[in-house]
Amino acid sequence: MLKEAIYHRPKDNYAYACTNEELHIRIRTKKDDMKEVSLLNGDPYDWQDGKWNTNTVPMIKSGSDQLFDYWFVSIKPPFRRMRYGFILNDGNETACLTEKGFYDEPPLDDTGYYYAFPYLNNIDVFRAPSWVKDTVWYQIFPERFGNGDPSNDPEGALPWDSAPPERDNFFGGDLQGVINNIDHLAQLGITGLYFTPIFKAYSNHKYDTIDYMEIDPQFGDKDTLKKLVQVCHEHGIRVMLDAVFNHSGFYFPQFQDVLEKGAESPYKDWFHTNEFPLVMEPRPNYDTFAFEKSMPKLDTENPEVIEYLLEVGRYWVREFDIDGWRLDVANEVDHSFWRKFRTEVKAIKPDLYILGEIWHDSMPWLRGDQFDAVMNYPFTTNILNLFARGTISVKEFIENMTTVNHMYPKNVNEAAFNLIGSHDTPRILTECGGNEDKLKQIFTVLLSYIGTPCIYYGDEIGMSGPQDPGCRECMKWNEEDQNQDMFEHVQKMIQLRKEYPLLANEGELHFIPSNYHESCFAYTKSNGETTIMVVVNMSDEEASYPLPFNLKGRKIANIYTGEEYAAESDDLTAKIAANGFALFQF
Amino acid sequence: MLKEAIYHRPKDNYAYACTNEELHIRIRTKKDDMKEVSLLNGDPYDWQDGKWNTNTVPMIKSGSDQLFDYWFVSIKPPFRRMRYGFILNDGNETACLTEKGFYDEPPLDDTGYYYAFPYLNNIDVFRAPSWVKDTVWYQIFPERFGNGDPSNDPEGALPWDSAPPERDNFFGGDLQGVINNIDHLAQLGITGLYFTPIFKAYSNHKYDTIDYMEIDPQFGDKDTLKKLVQVCHEHGIRVMLDAVFNHSGFYFPQFQDVLEKGAESPYKDWFHTNEFPLVMEPRPNYDTFAFEKSMPKLDTENPEVIEYLLEVGRYWVREFDIDGWRLDVANEVDHSFWRKFRTEVKAIKPDLYILGEIWHDSMPWLRGDQFDAVMNYPFTTNILNLFARGTISVKEFIENMTTVNHMYPKNVNEAAFNLIGSHDTPRILTECGGNEDKLKQIFTVLLSYIGTPCIYYGDEIGMSGPQDPGCRECMKWNEEDQNQDMFEHVQKMIQLRKEYPLLANEGELHFIPSNYHESCFAYTKSNGETTIMVVVNMSDEEASYPLPFNLKGRKIANIYTGEEYAAESDDLTAKIAANGFALFQF
Ligand SMILES: [Ca+2]
Ligand SMILES: [Ca+2]
Repeated sequence: MLKEAIYHRPKDNYAYACTNEELHIRIRTKKDDMKEVSLLNGDPYDWQDGKWNTNTVPMIKSGSDQLFDYWFVSIKPPFRRMRYGFILNDGNETACLTEKGFYDEPPLDDTGYYYAFPYLNNIDVFRAPSWVKDTVWYQIFPERFGNGDPSNDPEGALPWDSAPPERDNFFGGDLQGVINNIDHLAQLGITGLYFTPIFKAYSNHKYDTIDYMEIDPQFGDKDTLKKLVQVCHEHGIRVMLDAVFNHSGFYFPQFQDVLEKGAESPYKDWFHTNEFPLVMEPRPNYDTFAFEKSMPKLDTENPEVIEYLLEVGRYWVREFDIDGWRLDVANEVDHSFWRKFRTEVKAIKPDLYILGEIWHDSMPWLRGDQFDAVMNYPFTTNILNLFARGTISVKEFIENMTTVNHMYPKNVNEAAFNLIGSHDTPRILTECGGNEDKLKQIFTVLLSYIGTPCIYYGDEIGMSGPQDPGCRECMKWNEEDQNQDMFEHVQKMIQLRKEYPLLANEGELHFIPSNYHESCFAYTKSNGETTIMVVVNMSDEEASYPLPFNLKGRKIANIYTGEEYAAESDDLTAKIAANGFALFQF
Repeated sequence: MLKEAIYHRPKDNYAYACTNEELHIRIRTKKDDMKEVSLLNGDPYDWQDGKWNTNTVPMIKSGSDQLFDYWFVSIKPPFRRMRYGFILNDGNETACLTEKGFYDEPPLDDTGYYYAFPYLNNIDVFRAPSWVKDTVWYQIFPERFGNGDPSNDPEGALPWDSAPPERDNFFGGDLQGVINNIDHLAQLGITGLYFTPIFKAYSNHKYDTIDYMEIDPQFGDKDTLKKLVQVCHEHGIRVMLDAVFNHSGFYFPQFQDVLEKGAESPYKDWFHTNEFPLVMEPRPNYDTFAFEKSMPKLDTENPEVIEYLLEVGRYWVREFDIDGWRLDVANEVDHSFWRKFRTEVKAIKPDLYILGEIWHDSMPWLRGDQFDAVMNYPFTTNILNLFARGTISVKEFIENMTTVNHMYPKNVNEAAFNLIGSHDTPRILTECGGNEDKLKQIFTVLLSYIGTPCIYYGDEIGMSGPQDPGCRECMKWNEEDQNQDMFEHVQKMIQLRKEYPLLANEGELHFIPSNYHESCFAYTKSNGETTIMVVVNMSDEEASYPLPFNLKGRKIANIYTGEEYAAESDDLTAKIAANGFALFQF
């Protein structure tokens, strides 16, 4: 038994409340080391004859990555209190792990040895809005989705799709353009729109905010936004806006005032600086995002800034009924601010979705007091590395995905914002070298995986484009420029995800071991009664894939093609097309 | 290299801000596995020619416990942002650990591999009040410390110290009794008083609150408390009160109202129940502390309860200028309530100390948004097990203390409330079987260790007593009943702790390996220039202890005895008395 490999620490991803009566407990052990792991547990105050009363429940192996196995159990402590330890059996020896270390036998003279989940308080349960886990998002870069109102086009705007996208060109896209094209979105079946910034800003991407309280006039006005939200809601589509609270744009009037007046400016404490006047060369004497002098970092510890930004957060929810906030560079703003932000915006709309842009391990923001989710870039990276770049094997893909799944609580994973590309990255089809089969496979995985998937505008019609600005082409509205086959695939996968909750966030995901088949990998989603199995063929040849279950006498459906089979023998072997996939239900 | 043993995850005890410019980074490896560990780090935005610019700084081994070594480095990222990984060298191979796993060579094409401390925001730095780390506490059980006002004695109160303490007897102790005896406390040198509850309650221990807004009349009135706080402050002594917010007492009027009126009571939602009338037998139909029907759990998610308890928190700070709140059963109250509590009371008095009663791993309460410290029971247990019960070896003692030190950030450890006994436990002298030498050793360690030490009233004069109520005897005010020798020892240790900040929380603590000497153990506190070494002789015979440093030419002082030596050779061997100790400075 490799004791050094064993890890457990209460809260976070290892011991958390999943509902107001259910705890999830996990433990990590060396890969293939343990035969059995179980959870010794009891109410801390339940004693009899000087001995603590305990139960022992078996844990299941919920996944394995490169170095470790993960064990899991869900448990409902009758009085919402629990002390617990682990009984570990590697086939040769048994040990009891407590908070105070390892014991040969569980000590029962005191609960003080044990890990504690002292009380399952309802209010501390992590709860993303319940609608999120069933949502399929669609990301819109407003300057490039549709031009619904030529009257607001910026000076020098080019005719739609008449030129490649550049850092500083404009095509006149706007909010009315989204309203006008709502049928495309409704037909596709998406149920959430994520807009990159729409507030007044200088650039075409609008991340350089000038006024957080105004719609950029190139995009329309507040009435247009109201109409847009209304139209979306009528179509069952939620609306999420993007806010940049880490730093302002260069032309933010408060920053301009400090540039101009220095220490005399009433806004001199809105930024991070101790020296006046502000200088930008050779190096700014104020804090910035990265080393970008035109992006001055806001001082989110200054009560005036806090109140200003909180009112921004509240205003668009209160007045425009938006459903989510996506927060740019969220990891560089203080936790204290995000706690206030959550409290304020959720007071107006309790089921508002708060999504942070964080690229790395995000547990400290996902403890229920700050965000509901982060952008799931590890998902993106693993998908790209496997399908597009071919830099990892299926084995590594499964291990990496398992690592990420076990870094967070299950209820956190369900709300994770899974993306395969954005306005910041080459388009996914371009990453795939134009291979449409691979893209279809990626959409199949995206739309059958744990989390809340997002489609970058145009990817569903097979648009391509390199690293930004290349990935920000105008949406192709001419049908002949649209890949209808791809559209129909995405549409069908979205439809299936709605029809079969197992494809979304119902049930448990398990990967079939990577060595089971030489060219296909697979995972199941199961609720204990029904299982859906996603099989993906990574090779250029058709594969025979024997389903790794005894299905004799069961009905099996390929829910993608609608074919049904009755398994007549123990072994059912399916044909999976070259670079294809299948979705079996049984 | 045992990769499975290596653990690091940003924030908490592994990567935290110690000041507004300094990060502490730690990593755990298998014991005796690594020869060298260093931190590869850089600003995430500092790139040159397509390659990330990094530095590598060596880490030091800051301690070892039974299974692991811990490595530490303090670093000041120039722009308060850092991406980092670890270079691990076990003598045979070198590996680079990143958030995405192990690599043979550090990948420098992307910072996305690496762990992130995205921004060191000042407001997120854990900061206990700065006075706490220099405070020596004294715990008073008010019914038993001094009777300063016989007019408020409860009916049937017994003459002072005329009988053994029982669950339900009274001796008339009160707040005036503390004021009258302030000289004893000032002479001893303590600088903080922790009072078990003083609010109106039924029992002699007052943990069964009836009215959180009133002083128990047996203890005096609000004027007495005001005078007490004033007198303490004049003597440089802070005052901490004890509050029970998890549950009320049985005679709390709001609970009595629900008992009486059931669903008609305006307080029906103040507790955890769905059934009316409330019944107590055979089992209460409302949530309680443990299974104690007379301790109904308060619903701290109910806005009325929240506001009531927050006002309790604010009131005694605002009106009486108290310096700390000790929170009973703090782990069973929701985190959300504690965040609000902290915000409210710190708004009135930013340097208020918030101390939670938590017996187990307390990291989730010590992230800067809830408590400043918890009661350090692991400290208590290890001290008792080594000195009093003899159930652990010196080796285990050192390992256990090292484990605890590495479970929390350094700045958290400095504010930890170290106790060796309380109103809930047998008195420390009794635990030591009456052995005064052992008690002196314990006081020596308590008063030279990391954290903020607390002395339970009477322990300093050698009082004894078994498990409560036996440990709650009346304070012995007759000099002939006081152990003057013990008093002088404690007094001297407190004096030394004030005189030599290294004995308090300056510098770094290191244990001398347990196998260095057969009967003595030792630890050093060092700031890099000066070192104080505490040596404790666990045997019944005088020991020769060669100081494990090359001190030739240095001056060495025993700061306890005042003796000074000049080391003339490399080896300096000190005599440590049987069951004695020494404090060397060099
Ligand atoms: Ca337009
Ligand atoms: Ca009295």
